[in-house]
Amino acid sequence: MQNFIHNIPTQVLFGKGQIENLTSVLDRFGKKVLLTYGGGSIKKTGLYDDVMKRLNDGGFTVVECGGIDPNPRITTVEKGAQLCKENEIDVVLAVGGGSTIDCSKAICAGAYYEGDLWQMVLHPETIKKALPLVDVLTLAATGSEFDIFGVISNMETKEKIGSKLGFPAVSICDPTYTFTVPANQTAAGSADIMSHIMEVYFSQRENSDMSEGMCENILKSVIKNLPIALKEPENYNARANLMYASTLGCCGMPGYGKDLSSWSCHGMEHELSAFYDITHGVGLAILTPRWMEHILSDKTVGRFARFARNVWGLEDSDEYELAKKGIQALYDFFKESGIPMTLTEIGIDEEYFEKMAEDAVKYGGLEDAYVPLTKEDVVAIFEACL
Amino acid sequence: MQNFIHNIPTQVLFGKGQIENLTSVLDRFGKKVLLTYGGGSIKKTGLYDDVMKRLNDGGFTVVECGGIDPNPRITTVEKGAQLCKENEIDVVLAVGGGSTIDCSKAICAGAYYEGDLWQMVLHPETIKKALPLVDVLTLAATGSEFDIFGVISNMETKEKIGSKLGFPAVSICDPTYTFTVPANQTAAGSADIMSHIMEVYFSQRENSDMSEGMCENILKSVIKNLPIALKEPENYNARANLMYASTLGCCGMPGYGKDLSSWSCHGMEHELSAFYDITHGVGLAILTPRWMEHILSDKTVGRFARFARNVWGLEDSDEYELAKKGIQALYDFFKESGIPMTLTEIGIDEEYFEKMAEDAVKYGGLEDAYVPLTKEDVVAIFEACL
Repeated sequence: MQNFIHNIPTQVLFGKGQIENLTSVLDRFGKKVLLTYGGGSIKKTGLYDDVMKRLNDGGFTVVECGGIDPNPRITTVEKGAQLCKENEIDVVLAVGGGSTIDCSKAICAGAYYEGDLWQMVLHPETIKKALPLVDVLTLAATGSEFDIFGVISNMETKEKIGSKLGFPAVSICDPTYTFTVPANQTAAGSADIMSHIMEVYFSQRENSDMSEGMCENILKSVIKNLPIALKEPENYNARANLMYASTLGCCGMPGYGKDLSSWSCHGMEHELSAFYDITHGVGLAILTPRWMEHILSDKTVGRFARFARNVWGLEDSDEYELAKKGIQALYDFFKESGIPMTLTEIGIDEEYFEKMAEDAVKYGGLEDAYVPLTKEDVVAIFEACL
Repeated sequence: MQNFIHNIPTQVLFGKGQIENLTSVLDRFGKKVLLTYGGGSIKKTGLYDDVMKRLNDGGFTVVECGGIDPNPRITTVEKGAQLCKENEIDVVLAVGGGSTIDCSKAICAGAYYEGDLWQMVLHPETIKKALPLVDVLTLAATGSEFDIFGVISNMETKEKIGSKLGFPAVSICDPTYTFTVPANQTAAGSADIMSHIMEVYFSQRENSDMSEGMCENILKSVIKNLPIALKEPENYNARANLMYASTLGCCGMPGYGKDLSSWSCHGMEHELSAFYDITHGVGLAILTPRWMEHILSDKTVGRFARFARNVWGLEDSDEYELAKKGIQALYDFFKESGIPMTLTEIGIDEEYFEKMAEDAVKYGGLEDAYVPLTKEDVVAIFEACL
């Protein structure tokens, strides 16, 4: 087992009705709130009105920063940080999914940052101080509600960077807010959760029983509960298990004690969505089974066989056959969840394969992945996704 | 899934050599240290000398409070708190196992507490301020390194109370410090870890897949790694998995989302060790299979069958037979780990059964347990342990 440091200061208020605690939580930090949110779905569901009423009744001054884009952009971060400075904001309240929370982390740090905010994203070790972030989660996917990361895109340079921007102070995770998430986003979010686990589950050494089992358990929980949530969007327990899986998925715990390497599929997918602005979870779902097929070898077959056995409950007397069955099961699961499973279906062709592969290796550190990947490997994986 | 709040501020530095960070950690809090430890095993292993050298080299003023008893007593808490006040201590450094850490939590709170410290243990909601606690863990068992609880005994009134005394600020968890733990304590500590899980695993509702699986995984990790650690005391991975199981075991996470009730076996065992000063984990190991047999019924059989299937890998076409097989497997596991499996073997007879049963129901809240227990139930369980 490898050494690890556990240091997650985020408080999580999980479950139905936790919004009741919103104003007492915000009161810890101050009365001037920057409210961040995305494309407006929270206005349709009534959550925006509920939050605004609570803020008004609680005597908060609210500055709004709506319209945060999926794959949030550095230009939005700059706008939000500017609003914080101009209005002497005390606390940022993010209401939304991973994109809104990621962007808000950068805004919190940007509010105190001197200099170019893209440089801040590239060099988060230069962040010295940040505003506190409270979030109300509306999508089970990225795990941003309980991790240090934010992924910010620069559309000008076509770069998409995952950066250690900071933890939320408090996350309010109410599964009922995901009842209205459409099937395609529910499925893509679950693919994202599963990918966070698979990125650490497939690693060089397997000597941390505690973490191996935690990974398998989260995967099995998603595999059991996603189909239920797709069939019954208001099934509380299914939504709750998916949301809790999201929360634990990216916080580091599934990898504690393991010999961690660069994340392969995230490295490749970030290029797809940097170039094409696709849904992150869809890109991951398309890439992952093809990546698995590409790296299956005598060295990795035991690991893939364990994946097939412990996660999917499959058996086969031949290890290779078993490994392939597990990979197929993952593909079928995504497909049956309604995710488009080829790049062609989402409008991506080979035009930028070379350039994206080059950037994936460079920014994703793919030479240090579970199985090191070259530009040629990545192009081959992209081609298998057509 | 039930609502839950995750709020664990403790930082954990896990793994070999993390002691290198000791002085930089302490420096966050100040230069005057109260060093607490137990019966002196840390002097035999050399850990005491290593810690003292680091403290001296780092320019710390050290006041010692050694000799903390297993089942730590309120009189020791009073002594430690007095030392903190007299010496204007900045931080308490506990080097030891659960008893030392538990006692140190009470000392940290007692250092600022006005009034009777036994009343503080009985009413922890009256604690307003506490010294920071840093610990160096030497035993995988109680999980005190990552939870809010401390168990303190009052030998005068024969009371043993688990109280929400406070979280450590930082826990240094180096599995190599458990290489020298004798086989009987290694086994008893593992029984304690398993009990923390079983106390929440056996609960009314089973709708939190994430937590059910986390419980089963921790149990399976202990079941796999305890025999290895007993056979090869210096097997790092086995010791590391047991230590991490200890750390997660009592922190609340295994029960997140579950419908929690009073802990049955802990309620009963606390009376045994309050009256007889036995090893906590041994008492738990003796009680647990008998408690399981006592509460096995049409209402609970499904849960016990799941326990047998998912934790022990057993099968049987008959649910009752399967449940019984699982209970027997647990008994056999403890027995094979060298734990004395009757009260008679550890010098306890029926003399105080009535009184202990009465107190167990009263202080343990056993009327609110998974299966509510009366005084008569507890006496019957004690008798089955003879």
